[in-house]
Formats: sequence, structure tokens, C-alpha cells
Amino acid sequence: MSASCSMERNSAQFTPYTYVYHDGTVFDLQPVRVVSSCRLDIYTFPFDVQNCTLTFNSYLHSLPAIQIGRFMSTEEVFQYSKTMMTTMGEWELTEIKSLHQQLPTSFNSTYEELRFFISVRRRSMLYVVNLLIPSCFLITVDLFSFLLPPQKVDRSLFKMTLILGFTVFLLLMNDLLPITGNTIPLISVFLSLCLALMVVSLLETILITNLLHSSTHYSEVPRWIRLSVIHILGHLVLLPPKPTQMEQIIQNPATLEMNASTKRASEGEAHGPEGPLDEDKAVEELRSLGRDLRVIRLKVEQELNVSQSTEDWNQVGFIIDRLLFAIYILFLSVSFICIIGMWVNSYNAS
Amino acid sequence: MSASCSMERNSAQFTPYTYVYHDGTVFDLQPVRVVSSCRLDIYTFPFDVQNCTLTFNSYLHSLPAIQIGRFMSTEEVFQYSKTMMTTMGEWELTEIKSLHQQLPTSFNSTYEELRFFISVRRRSMLYVVNLLIPSCFLITVDLFSFLLPPQKVDRSLFKMTLILGFTVFLLLMNDLLPITGNTIPLISVFLSLCLALMVVSLLETILITNLLHSSTHYSEVPRWIRLSVIHILGHLVLLPPKPTQMEQIIQNPATLEMNASTKRASEGEAHGPEGPLDEDKAVEELRSLGRDLRVIRLKVEQELNVSQSTEDWNQVGFIIDRLLFAIYILFLSVSFICIIGMWVNSYNAS
Amino acid sequence: MSASCSMERNSAQFTPYTYVYHDGTVFDLQPVRVVSSCRLDIYTFPFDVQNCTLTFNSYLHSLPAIQIGRFMSTEEVFQYSKTMMTTMGEWELTEIKSLHQQLPTSFNSTYEELRFFISVRRRSMLYVVNLLIPSCFLITVDLFSFLLPPQKVDRSLFKMTLILGFTVFLLLMNDLLPITGNTIPLISVFLSLCLALMVVSLLETILITNLLHSSTHYSEVPRWIRLSVIHILGHLVLLPPKPTQMEQIIQNPATLEMNASTKRASEGEAHGPEGPLDEDKAVEELRSLGRDLRVIRLKVEQELNVSQSTEDWNQVGFIIDRLLFAIYILFLSVSFICIIGMWVNSYNAS
Amino acid sequence: MSASCSMERNSAQFTPYTYVYHDGTVFDLQPVRVVSSCRLDIYTFPFDVQNCTLTFNSYLHSLPAIQIGRFMSTEEVFQYSKTMMTTMGEWELTEIKSLHQQLPTSFNSTYEELRFFISVRRRSMLYVVNLLIPSCFLITVDLFSFLLPPQKVDRSLFKMTLILGFTVFLLLMNDLLPITGNTIPLISVFLSLCLALMVVSLLETILITNLLHSSTHYSEVPRWIRLSVIHILGHLVLLPPKPTQMEQIIQNPATLEMNASTKRASEGEAHGPEGPLDEDKAVEELRSLGRDLRVIRLKVEQELNVSQSTEDWNQVGFIIDRLLFAIYILFLSVSFICIIGMWVNSYNAS
Amino acid sequence: MSASCSMERNSAQFTPYTYVYHDGTVFDLQPVRVVSSCRLDIYTFPFDVQNCTLTFNSYLHSLPAIQIGRFMSTEEVFQYSKTMMTTMGEWELTEIKSLHQQLPTSFNSTYEELRFFISVRRRSMLYVVNLLIPSCFLITVDLFSFLLPPQKVDRSLFKMTLILGFTVFLLLMNDLLPITGNTIPLISVFLSLCLALMVVSLLETILITNLLHSSTHYSEVPRWIRLSVIHILGHLVLLPPKPTQMEQIIQNPATLEMNASTKRASEGEAHGPEGPLDEDKAVEELRSLGRDLRVIRLKVEQELNVSQSTEDWNQVGFIIDRLLFAIYILFLSVSFICIIGMWVNSYNAS
Repeated sequence: MSASCSMERNSAQFTPYTYVYHDGTVFDLQPVRVVSSCRLDIYTFPFDVQNCTLTFNSYLHSLPAIQIGRFMSTEEVFQYSKTMMTTMGEWELTEIKSLHQQLPTSFNSTYEELRFFISVRRRSMLYVVNLLIPSCFLITVDLFSFLLPPQKVDRSLFKMTLILGFTVFLLLMNDLLPITGNTIPLISVFLSLCLALMVVSLLETILITNLLHSSTHYSEVPRWIRLSVIHILGHLVLLPPKPTQMEQIIQNPATLEMNASTKRASEGEAHGPEGPLDEDKAVEELRSLGRDLRVIRLKVEQELNVSQSTEDWNQVGFIIDRLLFAIYILFLSVSFICIIGMWVNSYNAS
Repeated sequence: MSASCSMERNSAQFTPYTYVYHDGTVFDLQPVRVVSSCRLDIYTFPFDVQNCTLTFNSYLHSLPAIQIGRFMSTEEVFQYSKTMMTTMGEWELTEIKSLHQQLPTSFNSTYEELRFFISVRRRSMLYVVNLLIPSCFLITVDLFSFLLPPQKVDRSLFKMTLILGFTVFLLLMNDLLPITGNTIPLISVFLSLCLALMVVSLLETILITNLLHSSTHYSEVPRWIRLSVIHILGHLVLLPPKPTQMEQIIQNPATLEMNASTKRASEGEAHGPEGPLDEDKAVEELRSLGRDLRVIRLKVEQELNVSQSTEDWNQVGFIIDRLLFAIYILFLSVSFICIIGMWVNSYNAS
Repeated sequence: MSASCSMERNSAQFTPYTYVYHDGTVFDLQPVRVVSSCRLDIYTFPFDVQNCTLTFNSYLHSLPAIQIGRFMSTEEVFQYSKTMMTTMGEWELTEIKSLHQQLPTSFNSTYEELRFFISVRRRSMLYVVNLLIPSCFLITVDLFSFLLPPQKVDRSLFKMTLILGFTVFLLLMNDLLPITGNTIPLISVFLSLCLALMVVSLLETILITNLLHSSTHYSEVPRWIRLSVIHILGHLVLLPPKPTQMEQIIQNPATLEMNASTKRASEGEAHGPEGPLDEDKAVEELRSLGRDLRVIRLKVEQELNVSQSTEDWNQVGFIIDRLLFAIYILFLSVSFICIIGMWVNSYNAS
Repeated sequence: MSASCSMERNSAQFTPYTYVYHDGTVFDLQPVRVVSSCRLDIYTFPFDVQNCTLTFNSYLHSLPAIQIGRFMSTEEVFQYSKTMMTTMGEWELTEIKSLHQQLPTSFNSTYEELRFFISVRRRSMLYVVNLLIPSCFLITVDLFSFLLPPQKVDRSLFKMTLILGFTVFLLLMNDLLPITGNTIPLISVFLSLCLALMVVSLLETILITNLLHSSTHYSEVPRWIRLSVIHILGHLVLLPPKPTQMEQIIQNPATLEMNASTKRASEGEAHGPEGPLDEDKAVEELRSLGRDLRVIRLKVEQELNVSQSTEDWNQVGFIIDRLLFAIYILFLSVSFICIIGMWVNSYNAS
Repeated sequence: MSASCSMERNSAQFTPYTYVYHDGTVFDLQPVRVVSSCRLDIYTFPFDVQNCTLTFNSYLHSLPAIQIGRFMSTEEVFQYSKTMMTTMGEWELTEIKSLHQQLPTSFNSTYEELRFFISVRRRSMLYVVNLLIPSCFLITVDLFSFLLPPQKVDRSLFKMTLILGFTVFLLLMNDLLPITGNTIPLISVFLSLCLALMVVSLLETILITNLLHSSTHYSEVPRWIRLSVIHILGHLVLLPPKPTQMEQIIQNPATLEMNASTKRASEGEAHGPEGPLDEDKAVEELRSLGRDLRVIRLKVEQELNVSQSTEDWNQVGFIIDRLLFAIYILFLSVSFICIIGMWVNSYNAS
């Protein structure tokens, strides 16, 4: 008797005794150490159940010569195996079935075959704790990082550090997975999806950052963007365009003054040479004060650059940011539900 | 005689002599190299004590044929083993017990069995130095990082870097742990808890950062938040609402002036066209100066944006920050005491 | 019969029976476990197809003594092997060919030889998911990072973190590749090229950062740079020199005032001591106010330092940045198309 | 003859010849391949010297039957071994001693025993270059990072990155160390001490950062802190309290003006309604200008917030920073001298 | 015949036939699988050439009994070996020499010995691509990072991240190097030198950062530093002291005004109480305006703090920065040329 897929020489201790009983029963209690291999299906790793088959038949002799039977029922074998399995830490024996059949050989005879179907279930607790929960943590952090104000904090560097951590994490975890063919395990899809989402959200952050910081170099917001993004999308993501009343109060006198001052400036230029003649010196001094003050005002305004164009671009940035945040949440939810659903299905099916 | 759970062929040097004495004693000083396996219980890793059993019985012969005994007492075996153990660096032999019994076979005979119960204790010093102390260091740094002022320093990036370090650390440490079934070792729980706490505190930091930096976009603090958070929670965490006296002094004239200036501005708008007619030029210049100055003031105020709403939101942020800091400390203390307690219990019990 | 390149002793179970039939056919169903080696060509890793040869001939006996034949056709061997291959997860059996020939020995006799040519194709899915896609993600992030405004965000630190992540990633991936001679696998070229591009774009970022931040220490933009870079290159990369009209409005009065104020300042210095005598005190006060105001204005202007020289240098920086961005995209596209082309070619050819 | 602690079967080529000479000398040139184990003492790793013992005695026969001797002197054995050791790259053979003795067996007979004491010294150069020097580099960087101005540069993030690097470094280095019992090797103590120092200095940095940035929220520096820290400790660390003359000049008029302005403000409030009636319009305008200007001044002062309290807290921060820097240097020097001393001692002793 | 340094039992298939010819030639085509060891000299790794010796002699029989010869010439052996070497991916066979000699035994007889000297050259391409080029990239980035303006960008954090990346890189690469005695391989020296240069340049950056940011706390630049650093070294590194004309224009009126204002301030203090009595209210208002304005001016100046002392310290910082940059480039060039020279020498010599 030998396991058909075992190609290793039996390395267990040899026992020189064979018991022959009066009824023809022969006991040969030969211990056999079998190294067998089993096709792993890691699609649902780490929630996978592996089914292995141990086939016992005679390699040389056909049926009348060697009959194969078993002393214990499959149930007893199962119970006995469970108590004997001491070191298979990662696997839990779930079922043992057997099949006893007679098969024809190629020489017009039959031979007996005994098959054991062994199901082992991977204990997934440690993988969940060490692999799934931390990656969920990281994707949660990525989700929350949308709350970081991009104009104050370097959100892109934050996300880059997050991706760096996730990459190291992803690669170290690849050591755990056995390399098998074209069926990518679900967990690999899950982790790659997380990485893809992080990268996409990083790219979006870079875009927003560019929009918020470089908008002073941009021209006016085009009319169609203003209409579609600020008015339509803005209402969609609960960021309606500001009434800009307060702003107007500040802005109005400024522009009003601007016109006035430029008018006066041009006036001043115009009757500049004759002004000092028919004015007393105090007024002249005041005018020079006024000119200084206007320059300061222009500088201060320039520094704060709250031009309407920039405001609009910022508003566009915030709206896109929030819109993509919503899409991100949506996509994340859908894909997670899908993957968890597939996991549950595969788990129940297997 | 062979160890029952050893499936490996004896690989020690074969000795061809057997000594037969006149009293029937047979000495067969056969050296045996046994590779045995032992079920590891790593629940209390690295403070675990492993109990292994070595069972010696005859695989073939029942009692009258083979009797099993021992020459040395268990104590002598223990002492001798201790001096002989040279390379078991990580383990310390703590106890050897033996059990000598006769068991019935399935063929109406009995066979003798000699069991040795071997206890080895893991030397945990290196794990404490390399694993527990650095992770305590990191969680301490995370705890202290609450002191970083979120409005000046990028606390979220700091915490992200910390989590990155901890993740790498966590994964590298997983290499040390043998993978065993569903009983998660306490140390894994401990490290995952540390990670969870770090992530939660990072999320909290992101929230606070959002509250502090983006509060200018927010509307007024709702009444119930003001009441519950600023007044009640604020007193709880020793951050009572500021009397804002100093603030008021600055604020008051400003708002007062604001009203005045807007009133004057509207006045100025009203009799703007007629004003210059019945005024001398100095006053006109002064008015134009005043307009410039008001614009500058509005800009400066806008830049410093110390509106009451922002102040309140900041106060809410600080209060929540400190509150979560307190909860964090509380939770950390409780969970650490729990885990250390469980460790001590398991350690004493085993 | 033994595989010629197998130097290992057969480690499979020995079978003591040999069947001798009446027609002289001898069946010796000896299972053989062969450890063979095969020259790997990893140029197109992970899309490689390996061709191995198993040669069966007699090591000792020439032709009349031993004839080598096969019972199954090559196709049957192929189909049977496919069903039997359970554990070769990473490899997919694609083809088995055989060659049956007679070769002369050195002793004027011939011997028979049976060669099997076995083609196995690496299942590249997992490598694509874990290796190529993440590195494409990272290079995409590097590409997009050109959008980060270098004067507001620390783009160099961002890129450094990216390179750090890529380096760790690159090195961990080197573990996957077998070390073989001088033919660098294409994937290694691909990853090194990515790294080189990242480093070059980092160096470019450092240069731009230097140009943007330190330009206040620089002298005027030389005439030939202004002509070649700002006017010619600027139009090329769609960054034409600004008309600086708005700027002029702000700038003009400032410089005008500057001249005026310095003139007045010198005047003031000149008849400073005698002025207060023949002027009333109000005018004197106004003059002192004016001096204070001018100092503030100069400070404010200094702080905003929008000198034309700095503006020009910044413009040069932006133009070079965008130019290198274009070159980067161009080079990236060309090299990626080349590498993918070589991959496709090699893949089809093999 | 067999090495007593070798449990492996001799795997060297068997030689079938034994030379028997006329004088009874028997040559049995049996090559023996011994896998022996040796208790490692890695306390002084990587400067350790290992002493191993090879004991040759007869496992079965007592003295008259088997006599053990050697052909070469110990010195010759040592020289011959040195030339023969080709692949023990990491170890350098330093000494071979031998002991030839007769020991009583438990059966009233004696047996001969030949012991070789072999000393090998680890070649520490590579460990020094790869392990000790980089960690000294990192601790030096940590030491120098005290020079980073905490109020301008994010020193805490810098130190966190440093610790991240050191942690990865520490863990990767743990792979090099064999795991042995409770005697922590000195190098482990050294590295843990470095880590502890880095963490402590990071915590200190966080405290200082908190003190420097959040001091505006604090109340006055208590009298005892001012006395003990600023005056006593300040002189100790060569940071005496500033005379604050320049500061006073700026501060004095400000506070003086403050009083004046609040007085005037209250005056203005008081006869505000009646003032405009008996004043000409110019003065009225000037007053309104004055009010605007005062608000701007208050804002500017608020922005620069150089209140005495903040200044004092900053001073406290700087003093503590420098004090802890001094303590850090002191502790670092003492502990390094201790560890190096212990290393040298252990090295000389062994 | 057996390889003298092979202690492993031959594990190749046993062949039971020996051919005895009429002329006394005996063919024993015994396949032998030899595991031999060879002393590695990795001084010039990865450009090393290893020379191994295979010695064939009789372990037992002296010359008349066994004669050793070879059928193929050394050149044929070399060519045949080259075609047979299929799996030695990393090594390239460069030369096989042989030595046939007779040596005296210790029993007055001679024995024949056949030595093969085998030279294999490591294929260094992969190491160059994966190890040397990335580290050159990193050192180049470190070199360029001197261009980062230290007062605007956090150059120290940038360099720290770079060192972090290099450390990880360095340690992962140590896995590739075999551990051999006291001869440090050149590549290790090269990488350590890179690390040292990076650390030194980081320390320099910290110093510069301290000088640039904290210089407001410093006293005047001492005369000898000003002379030696600013004037002499400054010219050396092409950073001559600025003429500070433009600066003077701004500075001059400021200091002039400062004196005036303090004089006036003291005056104002002096006849403050009596002034308002003999002045009309407009002038009084103007004076109060003037006081406000002066305070603002002082604050603004304080904020911009362009004191001469700070300017000088900054200049010192820039000069030292550029000087060390030059020294860095110099040292880098010299050491790289040295190492490359040693590499080329060793490579040619071996």
C-alpha cells in the first residue's frame, strides 16, 4: 500500500514483524511517513478550505491478490485524527470522507482503491488581525484625510507617507501568499484596490492643491465651468455658491475707491504741476500721505489677493474635492460590499 | 523502544554491540536522535511555558515480552539534561516529570508505557527588549504627540510617520510569531490595540485640524454645541470659556467703529457728491485718506480673521482634543492594566 | 534509463517486481523521482516561457542491448501530464514535444536517445498585480507631482518620499528575480528607468525650488536668458510673458512716488532744519506722519518683494519646469512604448 | 572514535581499508564529517570569542580495549587546521588546546578521553562597519538635531523620521543576532539605549514645541518658575534673562500709548456724541482716522503677540531645551563610556 | 578517485559496470557528484574573480597501484564544461588550468595528484544595476540638495528622509554580501563612505539652519569672524559681501527717523502735558495719529527684522554652506576616483 501521489521514499522507522493469524488475516503495522502534495485553491485566502485526496491502491498487484479495507469507520478515523493532529497550527481538520471502489486495470483485471477526502480549513484569525484590520485602518485614514484642509496642511505629503506605508505593508504581505496561477486571490484584489484608491485620491489631492495654490496665475473661470461646477455640482455636494454679501461690503468700497483713486490719480497727474501752487502746504502734505497710503493699500490687497477669479477657482477646487470624496466613499462602499459578498459566498460554498 | 510521535528514522550513529549479563539484564546503549513535535500554546508569548510529552512504549510487543524501566530517577534525569542542554538558547528547562503505567492493548494484553513530561520556559528577555519596550516607546510618543499644537505644527503628518514606523515594526515582528490557530496571542492583541489607538488618535487629529483650519468656512457654532461642548465639557477638561475681556476691548471698538464706519460710509455715499462742494480741500483729502485706511483695516481684520465664530470653533476643537486625550489616556491605562493582568495571571497559572 | 542531467540518486520508493511477458516484453514499472535543472532565460520575466529538455538514454549500454521507446504518444503524455501537475502553481505546461534518435557512441556503436522538450509558461498575473501595477502607480504619482506648486508646497520632500517608497519596493522585488548572468531582464531595465526618471525629476524640482526661492539674491536675468527662455521657450510651453498691465498700474505710481518721495526726502533733508520755523505745526506733524508712512510702505514693498528681477526669475523657473515636464512625459511615453514593444515581441517570439 | 556530542551519522565517504602493521599499529584513516554544536556566549557580540570543546572517547569499550592518542602535537594540529580552514569566513581560529585523561566508567574500568579546546574569534570588522558606525551616525544626528530651531522648523517630525529609520535598522539588525537566553548582549543594550535616548529627546522636543507655540494660551509664568528656571537655570546653561532694553523701548510707548488710547477711547466714547458739534470737520475726520489707525495697530500687535508672558514662556522653553541638551550629552557620554569599557573588559578577559 | 576537499558522500546514481579492456585499460564511468568549497575573496565584489582548486588524488593507494591521468586536454575540458554549465547563472567560467604532479607520501612512496584550477568571474551587471546605480542616484540627490534654500524649505527633513532611504537600502544590500573576515569589500567601504558623507552634510545643514533661523538671538558677528568668513572666505566661494546700497537707502531714513522719532518721543513725553494746552485740537489729533503710526512702523520693522547683525549671520551661513558644498564635491570626487581606481586595479590584477 502506498499513497499514489507520494514520490518520497518512506522515511519512518522500519518494523520487521508481520502478524499472521489463523484466519488468514495479516497484520503489517508498518508506520508510513507520507509527504503528499495537494493542489491549493487560495482564491478565498485567508478564509479558504482545502480539499485533499489521499488515494491508497496497489501499485503492482490487481484485485484478487490484494484487497484493501479499513478497520475504523470514517467517523472514527476523523475523531482519531483530530486528537492526533498536534502541530498543524494553521489548519483545522473539518471533515474526512472515504470512497472504496474497484477500478479496471489495463490488463483485464480490477484493482481496489481507497480514497480519503480530507477537508482542512485555514484558521483565519491571525490573518484577519494582522493583515485585514491594519489595511482597513490605513484605508480609513486615507478616507479621513480628505478632511485635512489642503490650503493649510500638506495633504499630498500626508497621503504619500500613507501610500509608502501601505506599499511596504503590501509587499511584506505578499510573502505570506503562496504563488499560484492565474486565479488572483480575492485578498490580493482587495489590497490592490485599496492601493489604487489611495493613488487616485492622491492624484486628486495634487490637482486640488494645484487649483488652490496656483489659481492666481489662472485667467477667469470660464462661463461653462462656473455654471456646471459652481452652480450645479456645488448644490449637489451641499456647497452652494456663497452669497458673498459680507465680501461685497468689503469689496464694494474697495472697487469704488479703486475707481475713485485711479480717477483722482489721473486727476492728480493732470493738475499735478499746478496743484501745489494754489494749495496750501497742509493739503499738499495730505496728498502725499494719500499716495503713500494708496500704495500700501494696493500692496495689502495684492498680498491677500482675494480677487473674484481666485475665489471662484478655490470654490471649484472645494466642490471637486467634495465631489470626489463622495465618489470615493461610494466606490469604496460598493467594492468592499462586493468583495465581502464574494468572500461570504465562496466561504459558504466551499 | 521508540518515541511514539517520532516518525523520523533514527539518524544517529548505529552501535553494533548489545551487552547480555548473567542476570538477564540486556544493555543496548543505542543512541537515538529523536525529532519530536510538541503542540505550542503561544497565548502568553513571550512569557510562555511549553509542556511537551515524550512517550516511550513498544510499538509491537506487549507486556511480558518487553518491560520498560529507567535507571535514573526523574530528578537525576532533570539535572543531567540541564547540563547536557547546550544549544537550546531560547528555552530554559524547568521541570521533568515521568509517568510509568501499564495500558491494555486491543488483543487482551497489556503494554508498558513510560511518559516524560517536559516543561520548558521561553527566555523572554530578548523579546521584551526588542519587541515590547520599543512598542511602548512608540505608544508613548503617540500619547505625547497630543501636546503638539495642531494649528502650528503638522501633527497629522507626525502621527502618520509614527504609524508608518509602527506598521513596519508590527509586520517584521509577525515573523517572530509561529502561526497557530484561533487563539490569538496576547501580544498580538496588545500590538493591534496599540495600532488601533494610534489610528483613532490620528483620525481625531485630522478632525481637529479640519476644525481649526477650516472654521472660517463654517457658520456660527450652533447653540446646543456651544452649551454642551464649550460650557459643560470645557469645564470638565479644565478649559473654561475665556472671559474674553482683553478680546472684548479690542473687539468692541472694532465693531463699534465698524458700525460707525459703515454708517459713515453710507453717509459718505449719500452726501458724497455734495460733500466736496461745501468742504475745503484738506477735509476732502482727509476723507479720501480715511477711505483708504478703512479698506486697509478691513483687509487686516480679514487676514487675522478673529471672528467670534472662528474663535468658538477653535475653542470647540481644543476642548474635543483635550477630551479625547483624556479618554485616550484612560483607555490606554485600562487596556494595558488588563493585558498585563492577563499576562501575569497566565504566567502564574502555567 | 536515467535522465542524463540528473545527478541525484533516485529517491522514490523501490519496486521489487519486473514483469516478463511471453513475447519478450519486459515491464519494469520503476517510479523515478528526477531532480533536473533547466537553464532559465528571464529576459522577458514575468512573461517568460521556459524550454527544458529531458534526455533519456542508456548511460552504459549501446543500441542492440537497450532499445528505448514510449507507450503513449507525445500528445497523450502532454494531456496526462497536465492532469497530473497539481503543485506547479506558478508554471503552466504549454507544450511537450519529443525527439527519438540514434546517436553514435565513441566505440563504433550507436545508442538510442529519447528527448522530451517541455515548454512551461510562467503565470504572470500575480507579478503584474503586485509588481508592475504598483510601480506604474508610483511613476504616475511622480508624473502628477509636477502639478504641485513648488513655491507653496515642499515638492522636493514629496518626491523624496516617493523615491524612498520606490527604493524599498525595488529592493524587495529584487528578491523575486533569480540572479542570472549578463542579460538584464527587461523588468529590471523598466524599474531602473522609473527610478532614474524619478531622480531626474527630483533634481529638476530642486533646481526650480532654488530658482523660485533664492531669486531675490540673484542679479537681473541676463538678456540672452530673457530672450531665449522667457520669449521663445515660454511661447513653446504656452507660458507667454505676461503683459504685466495690471502690474504696471500698481508698479507705476509706486516708482513714480518713489522718485517723488526720494526727491521730497532729499528736499526735506535739505530744508529740514529751517522748515519747522516758517511752517505751522500741523504741517510739521503731517510731514512726520508722511515719513513714518513712507518707511512702512518701503517695508511692505520689501516684504512682498515683487521686483521685476524676481518676477523674471520666477517666470524662468516656471517655463523650465513646464518644459522639463513636457520632456519627461515625452521620454516616459517613448521608453514605455519601447519596453512594452520589446515585451510583446519577445513574448510572441518565444 | 566518535565525537561525543555528535548525534549525526557520519556522512563522509566510507573507506574500506584498514592498515595493520607488524608492530600492532592499526591505521584506520576513516574520514569523519562531524556536525557538532557549541554553546555560544554572545554577551560581547560582535567582539566575542567562542570556546568549543571536541571530546573523543569510545562509546562502548573501556581502556584496555581501546587506547586513544594523537600523532601530531597540539601546535601542529593548530597550524594544520589554520591552513585547512577555507570557508569559515566569519571566524578566526585563535587557539587549540588538548587534554588527554583517563576517566572511570560505571563498571569499574577506565576509559580514555581526548579533548580539544578550540577558540575561535569572530571577525567583527563587518559588524562594526555595518552596525555600530551607522547607529553612531544616527545618534550623532539626533544629538545635533537639538540645534534645529523648534519655532521655525518642525523638529519633532525630523526626530520622528530619525526614530523611524532607527527602528527599521534595529529590527533588521536583530536578524543578525542569535537568540540566546537571559544574557542580553551588550550591543542590544547599546542599541536599545540609543533608541531610548532618541525617544526621550523626541518627547522633550514635543514639550518644547508645545511651550513655544501654545504659550499665548497660557497665563503668566508663575513666580517660582520665573525665579528657578529663568534666573537660576538660565545662568547655569548660559542663557541669562535678556535685559530687554530694546524691547522696552518698543514696548514702553506701546503700553503708554495703550493707556493713552484707552483713556482717549473712553473719553471719545464719553463726549463722542457732543464732540462733532463743537469741532470743525477736519478734526472730526482726523479722529475717525485715528480710530481706524488704532484698530490696525491693535491688530498688528495682536499678530506679533510679543507679550511679556509669551516671551517668558519662550525663555523657559529655551532654557529647558538647552538644559536637557546638556543632560542628554552627559548621559550619552557616560553610558557610552560605560558600554565601551565593558566591551573592552570583556574582550580582554575572554 | 575522489576530490580531496569533498567530505560529502557521493550522492549520484551508482553504476554497477566496470569495463576491462584487453590492453589493461579499465573504464569505470562512475558519475560523481561533488560538493566542494572554495575560499571566496570578495574584496572587489561585485567585480570579483574566484579561483578554485579541485584536487584529485588517491586517499589510500600510492603511485604504482593507482595512476591518475586525463582523457581530454585542459582546453577540451574547458570547452566541454562551458557547454555543460547550465545553472550557474551568476558565474561565468573564464579559465581551467590543470597541474599533474607526483608527491611523496609519508611512507617512502609517491602518489599522483591532478589539480584543476578553475577561474569563475561573477557577472556583475545585475549588481551594478540594482546596487551601485541606485546608490549613486541617492548620493547625487544628496549633492543637489545643497541647492535647496535652507531658509524656505526644510532641507534637514529632506536629507533625513534621504538618509532613511539609504539606510534601508544599505541594510537590505548587506544580505547580498557573504560575511567574510577582516577584509572589508570595497563596495562596503563605498556605501559606508556615501552614508558618512550624507550624515556630515546633514549635520552641516542643521548648523546652517540654526545659524539662519536663530540668528536674531545672537549678538553681533565678532570682528574676526566678519573679517575671516565674510570677507576672505566669501570672496573665495564667490559670495562677496553685498554693497548694501539699496539696503542703505531703505535703512538710512529708517534709522534717521528712528533717532528723530525717539527724540520726538522723548520731547513728546517732556512737554506732553503742556502741549495740548497751547495747540489746537487738529495738531493734537495728528500727534496721536503719529504715535499710532510709529508703533505700527516699529512693529513692522520688528517683524521684518532686517537688522544688520542678522544679515551678517545669514551671510556667514551662506558662505559656510557654499564652502562646505565645495569641500563636499571635492571630497566626493577624490574618494570616488580612489575607489573606482582601486576597483579597476584589482579587476585588472585578478
